[in-house]
Amino acid sequence: MEGVDMVESKEWYMAAYARDGVPSSDHLKCRTFSLSRVAVDSIPDDHIAIQSRWISIDPYLRSRMTGVEEGGLNVTQFPINQVIVSYGIGKIIRSKDEKYKEDDLVVIPEMPVAEYSVVPSKAVFIKIDPAIGVTPLEYLNVLGVPGFAAWIGIQVIGKPKAGENVFISAAAGGVGMIAGQLAKLKGCRVVGSTGSDDKVKLLKEEFGFDEVINYKKEPDLDAALSKYFPNGIDIYFENVGGKTLEAVLNHVNMYARIPLCGMMSQYNKVWTEREGVRNLLNMVGKEVHMQGFMVLSYLHLFEDFGTQIGGYLKDRKLTSKLKINNGIESFLDSVASLFTSSNIGKVVIQV
Amino acid sequence: MEGVDMVESKEWYMAAYARDGVPSSDHLKCRTFSLSRVAVDSIPDDHIAIQSRWISIDPYLRSRMTGVEEGGLNVTQFPINQVIVSYGIGKIIRSKDEKYKEDDLVVIPEMPVAEYSVVPSKAVFIKIDPAIGVTPLEYLNVLGVPGFAAWIGIQVIGKPKAGENVFISAAAGGVGMIAGQLAKLKGCRVVGSTGSDDKVKLLKEEFGFDEVINYKKEPDLDAALSKYFPNGIDIYFENVGGKTLEAVLNHVNMYARIPLCGMMSQYNKVWTEREGVRNLLNMVGKEVHMQGFMVLSYLHLFEDFGTQIGGYLKDRKLTSKLKINNGIESFLDSVASLFTSSNIGKVVIQV
Repeated sequence: MEGVDMVESKEWYMAAYARDGVPSSDHLKCRTFSLSRVAVDSIPDDHIAIQSRWISIDPYLRSRMTGVEEGGLNVTQFPINQVIVSYGIGKIIRSKDEKYKEDDLVVIPEMPVAEYSVVPSKAVFIKIDPAIGVTPLEYLNVLGVPGFAAWIGIQVIGKPKAGENVFISAAAGGVGMIAGQLAKLKGCRVVGSTGSDDKVKLLKEEFGFDEVINYKKEPDLDAALSKYFPNGIDIYFENVGGKTLEAVLNHVNMYARIPLCGMMSQYNKVWTEREGVRNLLNMVGKEVHMQGFMVLSYLHLFEDFGTQIGGYLKDRKLTSKLKINNGIESFLDSVASLFTSSNIGKVVIQV
Repeated sequence: MEGVDMVESKEWYMAAYARDGVPSSDHLKCRTFSLSRVAVDSIPDDHIAIQSRWISIDPYLRSRMTGVEEGGLNVTQFPINQVIVSYGIGKIIRSKDEKYKEDDLVVIPEMPVAEYSVVPSKAVFIKIDPAIGVTPLEYLNVLGVPGFAAWIGIQVIGKPKAGENVFISAAAGGVGMIAGQLAKLKGCRVVGSTGSDDKVKLLKEEFGFDEVINYKKEPDLDAALSKYFPNGIDIYFENVGGKTLEAVLNHVNMYARIPLCGMMSQYNKVWTEREGVRNLLNMVGKEVHMQGFMVLSYLHLFEDFGTQIGGYLKDRKLTSKLKINNGIESFLDSVASLFTSSNIGKVVIQV
């Protein structure tokens, strides 16, 4: 904003709900508004004006675009014609809260998907302390929602024991690749599934997965699981749902744990069209524990998480990968890309 | 056996597996063998000869008659041509173990479904102490597998809090009627489902259920759940599976618990023909905890269970109902009756 009286800011808004299918430009639209220096200078008390720097693109966003509250993830729907919000990092350009000053970088869980915006200062979750020595982007990744989700699923719900067999679907996604590493750090044997040979190679060579299934080359998942899990599955970190979950339930060991992080394969379908899982009875005999979770319910553990994961990062025991898309214009394509198996790692927009 | 040298004993054996459908006389057959006093007198050390008094008839037995080990309940199959075994109470007629003497009543988890039999004395789970003042049949019911299953599901997994809303399927079955009472004792509002108006009346008037759905009169369970659970479901005690579970998952509250005791509606189908549950994604957003269980994994809690339930029985806070069928000849009909909604309470054969 320096040196100009007026700036144009682009933002994405919900034009129409996408009940099923991948959202398109019919549903998500970009518009431009003008923001004046006067407006920025006159923000209310306990508010901050921010310039968005990075925006996190996560699968759960899809569930806020259906117009159906009870669609499965139990998340509120983006109001029509209003700006979309997502987890992000902004740079403060004006502050009316003494806790924050200009140029601070702050993590905002519900940051407007806009180049510039004004939000209540209580919307800030974390002020990034440069002295900690972690790159800001890690706060959207290993130290952010994907890392926290992976940690809750593996450590809190999965409770891995050394030598156990762990299966991770969508293993090359932002959450999956961290979940796999956390299980490896606990001494487990870890097998992932993903959709390309490049990702298979990456997960094995850079992320330490023991085996990785390319589900496009081995479409019979039941057979693949027989091959890769001769001793059965103790923990299944669920990211995709449907037929994948059904196949897994034919290979679970006694007392298996299934943390349910998400079910990406089912997000673009109305619930009556989703794939039914027919073998839940296996959960009785094998005494399986299946547990859905959302990160917001575990915020009381965020500090423990930060300490442990921060330690792993410092000791270089944990690595990650980002898919960085440039410019806020890429928002729609970034969301759509989550459902095409085209990404490696966590998707972020650099504004 | 007194005063005779030879007695005829009937026993049921597995003639052929019943992969699907309700088992018939093609699968379960009765035969007669002769047992001599000499044979009884010459039983090996650490063995007992028993006369069967009562035999417990439980839905899980069906899963031991399919010939498919991986059929869901993960139970071993009855070997072809060998005698069926079931939870039962026998009277000792000869003992070669000093811990037991003639006329003792003993609970045997895998008692042959035969009028007379010889088993290792270590097969005894409990010797019934008449001084405790509980009728022996309670050891097959409130103090037996149904009671223990109900207690694990409600207390250990369900963890009910006063005022919570609890739904119990197959509520007039041996497990369901106890589960409902245990939830009521914890101050919950309890709604059951069952298949006749007589059972609705019984559950409300004698077992204290707040509401009971006759699923034959209200076949749209989703609508019924909307009506009976305006505030949603906190605990669902699962006995039937399939479409019932799917309907429940559209009505669960945040952090709901679903102990999976069994899925009776699915036992007579091979797994690929079972009803698929399409809305498991709801478990993510509502952060539902679903947990399969088998009583054998909780034997370390059996004493706690016995103390608590014994107290409830003594204080007349818990009641139960038995469906007693007479004569070992009734075994096949007793098993088949489990799947016809014709019984009220726990099914037992009085031999």
